[in-house]
Amino acid sequence: MIKPKILKGFRDALPKQEILRKRLISIIENTFRSSGFVPIDTPALEYTEVLLGKGGGETDKQVFRFEDNGGRDVSMRFDLTVPLARYVSTNRNEINLPFKRYHIAKVWRGENPQKGRYREFTQCDFDIIGADNTESDFEILLMMYSCMKNMGIDKFKVHVSHRGLLNTYFKKLGVSDNSTEILRAIDKLGKIGQESVSEILKEEGLTEEHINSIISFISINGSSMEDVLGQLIEIFGTENEDIKRLKDLTELIAALDMEANFIIDPSITRGLDYYTGIVYETFLDDLPNLGSVCSGGRYNNLTRLYSKEEMPGVGSCIGIDRLIAGLEELEPDRMAVHSADVLVGNFGDSLVEREKAADYFRKNGIYADLYFGNKKPNNQYNYIEKAGIPYILTKTDNKICSIKRTSDRKVFLDISYDEAIKIIKTEKESN
Amino acid sequence: MIKPKILKGFRDALPKQEILRKRLISIIENTFRSSGFVPIDTPALEYTEVLLGKGGGETDKQVFRFEDNGGRDVSMRFDLTVPLARYVSTNRNEINLPFKRYHIAKVWRGENPQKGRYREFTQCDFDIIGADNTESDFEILLMMYSCMKNMGIDKFKVHVSHRGLLNTYFKKLGVSDNSTEILRAIDKLGKIGQESVSEILKEEGLTEEHINSIISFISINGSSMEDVLGQLIEIFGTENEDIKRLKDLTELIAALDMEANFIIDPSITRGLDYYTGIVYETFLDDLPNLGSVCSGGRYNNLTRLYSKEEMPGVGSCIGIDRLIAGLEELEPDRMAVHSADVLVGNFGDSLVEREKAADYFRKNGIYADLYFGNKKPNNQYNYIEKAGIPYILTKTDNKICSIKRTSDRKVFLDISYDEAIKIIKTEKESN
Repeated sequence: MIKPKILKGFRDALPKQEILRKRLISIIENTFRSSGFVPIDTPALEYTEVLLGKGGGETDKQVFRFEDNGGRDVSMRFDLTVPLARYVSTNRNEINLPFKRYHIAKVWRGENPQKGRYREFTQCDFDIIGADNTESDFEILLMMYSCMKNMGIDKFKVHVSHRGLLNTYFKKLGVSDNSTEILRAIDKLGKIGQESVSEILKEEGLTEEHINSIISFISINGSSMEDVLGQLIEIFGTENEDIKRLKDLTELIAALDMEANFIIDPSITRGLDYYTGIVYETFLDDLPNLGSVCSGGRYNNLTRLYSKEEMPGVGSCIGIDRLIAGLEELEPDRMAVHSADVLVGNFGDSLVEREKAADYFRKNGIYADLYFGNKKPNNQYNYIEKAGIPYILTKTDNKICSIKRTSDRKVFLDISYDEAIKIIKTEKESN
Repeated sequence: MIKPKILKGFRDALPKQEILRKRLISIIENTFRSSGFVPIDTPALEYTEVLLGKGGGETDKQVFRFEDNGGRDVSMRFDLTVPLARYVSTNRNEINLPFKRYHIAKVWRGENPQKGRYREFTQCDFDIIGADNTESDFEILLMMYSCMKNMGIDKFKVHVSHRGLLNTYFKKLGVSDNSTEILRAIDKLGKIGQESVSEILKEEGLTEEHINSIISFISINGSSMEDVLGQLIEIFGTENEDIKRLKDLTELIAALDMEANFIIDPSITRGLDYYTGIVYETFLDDLPNLGSVCSGGRYNNLTRLYSKEEMPGVGSCIGIDRLIAGLEELEPDRMAVHSADVLVGNFGDSLVEREKAADYFRKNGIYADLYFGNKKPNNQYNYIEKAGIPYILTKTDNKICSIKRTSDRKVFLDISYDEAIKIIKTEKESN
């Protein structure tokens, strides 16, 4: 006998979790498709050199890397961005530029598992490759907004900034040499708070005056996006190109009535080095500590590892696992998914009658489970309660049936199949 | 610069391939859900011992197996059946028996790549665990049938048999000791033909008389399932339990008008040792050499590796990659998928107007791509031709637009957005 144990940091998905996950992903995919984004897929395994570059990088220790049976040095993908860069280079002649792709797939990282962090998780990336303009930046913001709205989430804020703002500000202060470290510290603001950020900046050797200026810059907020833009123009003494891009985006956000869900927040940096333009993170109003559920930005040379051709891009990643964790906390009712709308029970009618009933209900849009187990009524009632099935068919006879509602045990006696379908659909649609 | 190469036996999915794959999977999932099957997921990586048993087996060489950074002996899953057995044992208290689950996911095998065989491929499994009766056998056959029909495939045959038939026949002939080898040889019938099967059986030491009897038994066919059942009863001199099960299934297949797509075929064995009851394979009428696109059977002790509790099951696996290869050959038109229904072009109207137009079309059910590239008309026409987008919006002004059809270059001048949507939808729905 072998113990059926699971690796640390890995998980099974139970049906109710998987049903919810698939439902959200389906909404997200429909949102992408409706705007002309197309799906792609890439291998889970790639040459290590392709994923990590020559010699590998900081991520190394977290990568599931091994030698395959053919002696190749291979690794499991740890994100969907590096595979996208490789994909665009490999399939350069097959794809249509600007390339709007999405990719929803598992990635693997050997991180130390902690609450909400796993070694296997789903990423949901969408990017536009081959364009650097306001409309492609806006399209990504619009997708973030539309996905949230279409998932029924209204209380969220997308925090937008531009990498150039801080870079220009650092130059103004004369601290550009430390910019990487300062950006990393600012990126931690949400997690560790203002005081700890100041502490780190002090350790980096910044003067108190510089630290105060930086803290006050990243704390800028206002009554509206226009208000914040005004403050920025005042600080810089001019409407530079980066502010202009944010202004154009603000105008489009207003034109499509989306202002309630966007703010300009100069503290957003996205830590990583490769962002070059706008950057953004998305927070749920009622769970600010959950962290960003959808982040991204503009990078201007995606394929530099594989090709000499410059390839600007802008993109984003929905943290679907984190989002589900948030929804479980905020709206537990969403988790009350059921496997079927009705169970065709077994109370003595012939198997042919029961099969015909199941077939009729299914063909009329009802999810009809057929009971296969022990005939005792108690077993059948236990089955529907455990699966959360709202109705059971207790009689099926030549298109006349009886159904019982699980919630209040109300019985509808000797009604037609069509009447039963109407009753079940009313409940299904109110869900 | 690093060469963006892909591992042998692995593939990228281009958008048109991935759109088709997702469309078929969505149809399959809806079919499963409508019958009360629920989705699950399991880790891509598991302890090697859990997947291969103590010591491992014949599959060993094909498994991507390695030591992770924590020194654990781990493997990538090579099918979805072993993970199901582990899952049922691990989550015994969380799942509802009989358990009707489906699982669509990637698996990895280090086989030698050849036409249609890859090292990474998608499996689409559906099983019913915890029941051994006619209705659960039938439900799996019904799902196979419904999936094919719902995918728009009418010309296919499900070949059904029962493992007990050949076992009983071998006993009758007195060749039971060789049954494993004989079953393996018969399983190759479709690939290597009758003569080669006879050759193998000869090498196994069977007499010419026995070989002739076996060949004639597995060649039984008739005008209908009832006809074949009659021949079987005649051969065995009695309607034994296995024939009875096939007879009950035949009755249900007739009751739901599915006879045209089913035949009883005693040559179906499914090779593998673990099948104990009915077995089946599915072939496309017009591509018999493609091999089975959906196979499975009954096994009566799924969880024996992990638990003492006996757990009967019946299930099936749709070979989605093979099915797509078949459809590409038979119905290339299905591959003519496009990324969007219309492209909102850039012919000088303001970005706000173009964004508003895209938004209006999207909210009315039209997949509307917005053009981000170089403004030259030729670039825009190239873009829609490469992506196969059937319409382009050449003017967007206060809800009045002009559209051009890609196929015949017909232009509709100065019509309302709603009129344009009507035109585009007509084409979308006829697709």
